Amino acid sequence: MAPLTTIEWKNNCVRIIDQTKLPQERLYEDIATTEAMYDAIKILKVRGAPAIGIAAAFGLYLGIREVPDTTVVSVFLKILKKKAAYLAASRPTAVNLFWALERMQAVAGKETKGHTTFQLKNILLQEAIKIAREDAEICRKIGINGFKLIKDFGTILTHCNAGSLATGGMGTALAPIYIGAEKGKKFKVFADETRPLLQGSRITAFELMAAGIDVTVICDNMAAVVMAKKGVHAVITGADRIAANGDTANKVGTYGLSILARAHEIPFFIAAPFSTFDLSIKSGAQIPIEERRAEEITCGFGKTTAPKNVKTFNPAFDVTPHANITAIITERGILYPPFVKSIKKMMQ
Amino acid sequence: MAPLTTIEWKNNCVRIIDQTKLPQERLYEDIATTEAMYDAIKILKVRGAPAIGIAAAFGLYLGIREVPDTTVVSVFLKILKKKAAYLAASRPTAVNLFWALERMQAVAGKETKGHTTFQLKNILLQEAIKIAREDAEICRKIGINGFKLIKDFGTILTHCNAGSLATGGMGTALAPIYIGAEKGKKFKVFADETRPLLQGSRITAFELMAAGIDVTVICDNMAAVVMAKKGVHAVITGADRIAANGDTANKVGTYGLSILARAHEIPFFIAAPFSTFDLSIKSGAQIPIEERRAEEITCGFGKTTAPKNVKTFNPAFDVTPHANITAIITERGILYPPFVKSIKKMMQ
Repeated sequence: MAPLTTIEWKNNCVRIIDQTKLPQERLYEDIATTEAMYDAIKILKVRGAPAIGIAAAFGLYLGIREVPDTTVVSVFLKILKKKAAYLAASRPTAVNLFWALERMQAVAGKETKGHTTFQLKNILLQEAIKIAREDAEICRKIGINGFKLIKDFGTILTHCNAGSLATGGMGTALAPIYIGAEKGKKFKVFADETRPLLQGSRITAFELMAAGIDVTVICDNMAAVVMAKKGVHAVITGADRIAANGDTANKVGTYGLSILARAHEIPFFIAAPFSTFDLSIKSGAQIPIEERRAEEITCGFGKTTAPKNVKTFNPAFDVTPHANITAIITERGILYPPFVKSIKKMMQ
Repeated sequence: MAPLTTIEWKNNCVRIIDQTKLPQERLYEDIATTEAMYDAIKILKVRGAPAIGIAAAFGLYLGIREVPDTTVVSVFLKILKKKAAYLAASRPTAVNLFWALERMQAVAGKETKGHTTFQLKNILLQEAIKIAREDAEICRKIGINGFKLIKDFGTILTHCNAGSLATGGMGTALAPIYIGAEKGKKFKVFADETRPLLQGSRITAFELMAAGIDVTVICDNMAAVVMAKKGVHAVITGADRIAANGDTANKVGTYGLSILARAHEIPFFIAAPFSTFDLSIKSGAQIPIEERRAEEITCGFGKTTAPKNVKTFNPAFDVTPHANITAIITERGILYPPFVKSIKKMMQ
């Protein structure tokens, strides 16, 4: 069974899996308007930075496809800009969202010379499809590179969701596992549930089960005993931002996992595309960490599970120092320490 | 503000805090019959091994106090035995439950000579009160000893609940913090929420707030970043069983915390009474670990948060190797490595 497809262009609509219905129900929804896409991004029907970028690109096309073909190009471009600004407000922190909207506008701007509005509309659709296809290709390359690292291993532990439900393809951290499945290799995966928002139990477990891969959900605090007792051969997670020295920001809990992996002499891999690297940041100390609202911890399941007005600390991410990372898997190859050199070389 | 009193003899009843109502409501309930106590233990209105022992002792007295004073002693003892067997079935795994019921029966058996049923009933009430008082004294001694270790520290991290709501006194892991509060010392406490059952956010946070102590709830996977960024000076947890070499079984997650503490050069303390040590067990490898049902992970909050039929691994405890423990705080003093020697010496 192949990895789930989170988002695709189908029957002149954008077909998405409504992730707010997971894990109880696998509901596909056909998005036909830019407003519906705005809502889908805003309420997390689509989530995961790469998937959001793709959704925004298609969403922008949906916003301009009804513009009459006879519209003057300069007017068309103004409408495009307005629709992009509208979509950009759906989730103000996801970098891929802005990146995709800018790329779409840039291609339209570049192509105006000699093209009609009719042609530009088609160029924009093709660009959105291209963004999705490129992301799928990146995921597959990460998978192929990562599989080389883990092909002799049996049991993998992962955290949060960096899989097919977060990207236009087979994901990043989960891609090597999917490539393995294609080759008939049966990995056993432990998925941290990943409090507070439970992306591991809700999403990673769901997509691995859907692809026929052996997955076991654990609470985050069980990772240490799983490493000690269950023969974990590698930890693989995704990344939200990687500094020039290899320090990696990812979902909170990743840093602790990297320490536990080290203590158990288990390799710790980060899987992330080229676009995740930020050479303007020298080390992890400079990566700002978003703190989120208390209710994610105190009533994350529709039920209050902590005293009223209790203090909380709820960082969304933490930073794993490069010294704890065995290798970083990218679509351009596998990076090894010293990362400051290997990253620089890859970026050239 | 003093620590909460979980269980006490008051107005000819056993007054308990109904812990099933926490953290939303602090509801005291007066238990007047052995059947009501059976239910209170069974549905976790009372929880925590020492508190359960005390509850059982009082529950046994409630079961025999209505026996007519004129009853022949041998008949009275048979009724006592029957009531004890009834209470023993309330939670078949809590060691303190059996220990307390046996102690109550033993004292009655020992005292029969020359005593009437009327007198035996009073002896049993006094014994239950004594069990509760002894437990409170043990907690206070642990607190005094532990406070010596942490008096110069500011910030403490703890896991699960080993506080006043689990014992007849001020708890074990939390006792040094309460002793500090009595002395005007203001600790800042980080409480792991402690998945799957959230004893940290539901119970530890509740009792510390009730006692006016500064507490911040975090998800378990945030402990590492808290250690790195928030100046944690010590980790203190309770224990469920301690082997002859100091290996300690405690709530799952404790083992991982001990590794994280070591990596951050933070002292890691276990606080536990003498009765927790089991010299018949040489090392932690021999401690059996209970695995609990999947639903605690997959729908622990009345809402399904994982795919249907997903596999889980749900160990209730893990074992922290003695090498990761800085010191063990007991009512008889503080034990340091090598624990195999210091434990042996204490037990003599």
